[in-house]
Amino acid sequence: MTVIKAALLGFGTVGQGVYEAIQTHSEQLKKLLGASVSVEAVLVKDITKERPGVPRELLTDNFNDILSIPDLQIVFEAIVGVEPALGYLKQSIAKGCHIVTANKVLFAQHGNSLQQEASRKGVTVGFEATTAGGAPVIRTIKELLRVNKISRIEGILNGTSNYILTLMREENYTFEAALKLSQEKGYAEADPENDVEGYDALNKLLILSELAFGEKPDLSVSGVEGITRITLEDIQKAKKAGQRYRHLVSAEMTEHGVAASIKPVLLSEDHPLYSVDGVLNAVAITASLAGTVTIKGAGAGKLPTASAMIEDAAALSGKLQTVQPLSARSLFAG
Amino acid sequence: MTVIKAALLGFGTVGQGVYEAIQTHSEQLKKLLGASVSVEAVLVKDITKERPGVPRELLTDNFNDILSIPDLQIVFEAIVGVEPALGYLKQSIAKGCHIVTANKVLFAQHGNSLQQEASRKGVTVGFEATTAGGAPVIRTIKELLRVNKISRIEGILNGTSNYILTLMREENYTFEAALKLSQEKGYAEADPENDVEGYDALNKLLILSELAFGEKPDLSVSGVEGITRITLEDIQKAKKAGQRYRHLVSAEMTEHGVAASIKPVLLSEDHPLYSVDGVLNAVAITASLAGTVTIKGAGAGKLPTASAMIEDAAALSGKLQTVQPLSARSLFAG
Repeated sequence: MTVIKAALLGFGTVGQGVYEAIQTHSEQLKKLLGASVSVEAVLVKDITKERPGVPRELLTDNFNDILSIPDLQIVFEAIVGVEPALGYLKQSIAKGCHIVTANKVLFAQHGNSLQQEASRKGVTVGFEATTAGGAPVIRTIKELLRVNKISRIEGILNGTSNYILTLMREENYTFEAALKLSQEKGYAEADPENDVEGYDALNKLLILSELAFGEKPDLSVSGVEGITRITLEDIQKAKKAGQRYRHLVSAEMTEHGVAASIKPVLLSEDHPLYSVDGVLNAVAITASLAGTVTIKGAGAGKLPTASAMIEDAAALSGKLQTVQPLSARSLFAG
Repeated sequence: MTVIKAALLGFGTVGQGVYEAIQTHSEQLKKLLGASVSVEAVLVKDITKERPGVPRELLTDNFNDILSIPDLQIVFEAIVGVEPALGYLKQSIAKGCHIVTANKVLFAQHGNSLQQEASRKGVTVGFEATTAGGAPVIRTIKELLRVNKISRIEGILNGTSNYILTLMREENYTFEAALKLSQEKGYAEADPENDVEGYDALNKLLILSELAFGEKPDLSVSGVEGITRITLEDIQKAKKAGQRYRHLVSAEMTEHGVAASIKPVLLSEDHPLYSVDGVLNAVAITASLAGTVTIKGAGAGKLPTASAMIEDAAALSGKLQTVQPLSARSLFAG
């Protein structure tokens, strides 16, 4: 039996999902890649903490242990924030590993340079999981709309904000009450600023814009508006008029480069993103031949995000070596 | 300069769209495929008819002219009905051409055998355009959800029926009045049976089911229900209850094989296809890891359907030879 060796950086919700998905979908991965995917190590901060379902000997808190795995081919990265993740990914690429990341903050800032480095080393960077969770928006743009010229992208890309706006409209919650419930349900963090002020959506917009237009909009954080100024009265008034507030990210190619905005927008029923409720994410892509294509799915969550990462790995089919595991090689050598 | 030679079978709306798209998107195709795509011949029924924008010398009514094109690599097929298209495609495959088809009736019945023949010859069959027009449903299932196990597919796959139901709900048209307007707008044919009785949707369901589950449901034409029995009163009653009739195609993997249905279904607002109005098509795919992914887009039309075919051709990147055109080769030979 041959194996494809993988390592996992980070074991939060997403990392756990990737580990679980590799186990539960091992047959399918084997069929697609020609060999089993074997997680050889999991990088965690605290190796003393119990990780149910993961053999203790796989855990390490030292990235050098990952680098020293012979024939390592795929590094899944599910850490939050730029460093130390960026350094790990650069070293992984230098080692000749394909990388698959869910790290939107990192990728929004350094995606370009990572992809250039990967290209020089003949490896790839999967980043489907950085944007819109389980909805395959990135690869639709990259692979399914390649001839089409994309003129406009609109998205609902922060599930927390969308959940809060949905609660306000459907249940007449105030912003504060809706935020509190979101926190209780685990959709919003204790410090919700990143979500409700639009910074999380900004990272995803930067990633989509670079992908679709080859450049980022000139949109500083000061030009980003979140949902905190929307009142229950605003929403009730809109509802009576048959309209809905959505926290909308948009980017459009113009003669003067990419024009973008991130702010709450009133949508009418004929807008493709009008009906996207709750924690869902969706992106509407307007393209020269296809017209407007809308993709909607779970914007976050353990398995949907893991899905994006695992599918990125499956796309490596044909690009991986299938090596003999050490024991088998010893047998052959003997 | 090298070229990739293509031929076009059929020059109705879709064929015209493909021809136009190859001209308007030539730079992008060249970048993706490493050479220009050159349409070397267009098969039509009546070569005396004027085809604006197409050089007369490209037109032929004899398929043997297509077969005799040296180094032909891609055959785009946009004919209606099984024969003579099936024979043409089989001969094209035998000649070693990749084929790209928009022919849903043909593909629903013979897709499997065509793909097997293509596989034996080392060529591919693109069929994105058979289902949901410009919405890239086929390749999302084939390429972006490969590790995921798909458990259920639901779709709105006939734009004409959906347009009629939308008119009835929004404008209080009777079925007959809505059908008449659809015919005037060119959405419905003079004989609308294929659309409004659900037979067109059946072909697309068979294609999706084979793709997602590897088998077709046991669903004879007698088990297919169209929209003709839905009255304006039904729709008004549903509207009051916050529900909408959609002509829904669904297929689900069960212990006993694929269970499928094609019929009008009352949907509530929380259903992913509730908001798909007018001539749009959409498919909701429920998968083991990703959850439910919904893809929505133009279900038909010249450029959206051409988009699907051109993107199928672009996916041949790396599988095509870039040959010297005859004149250049003569120079080298001399």
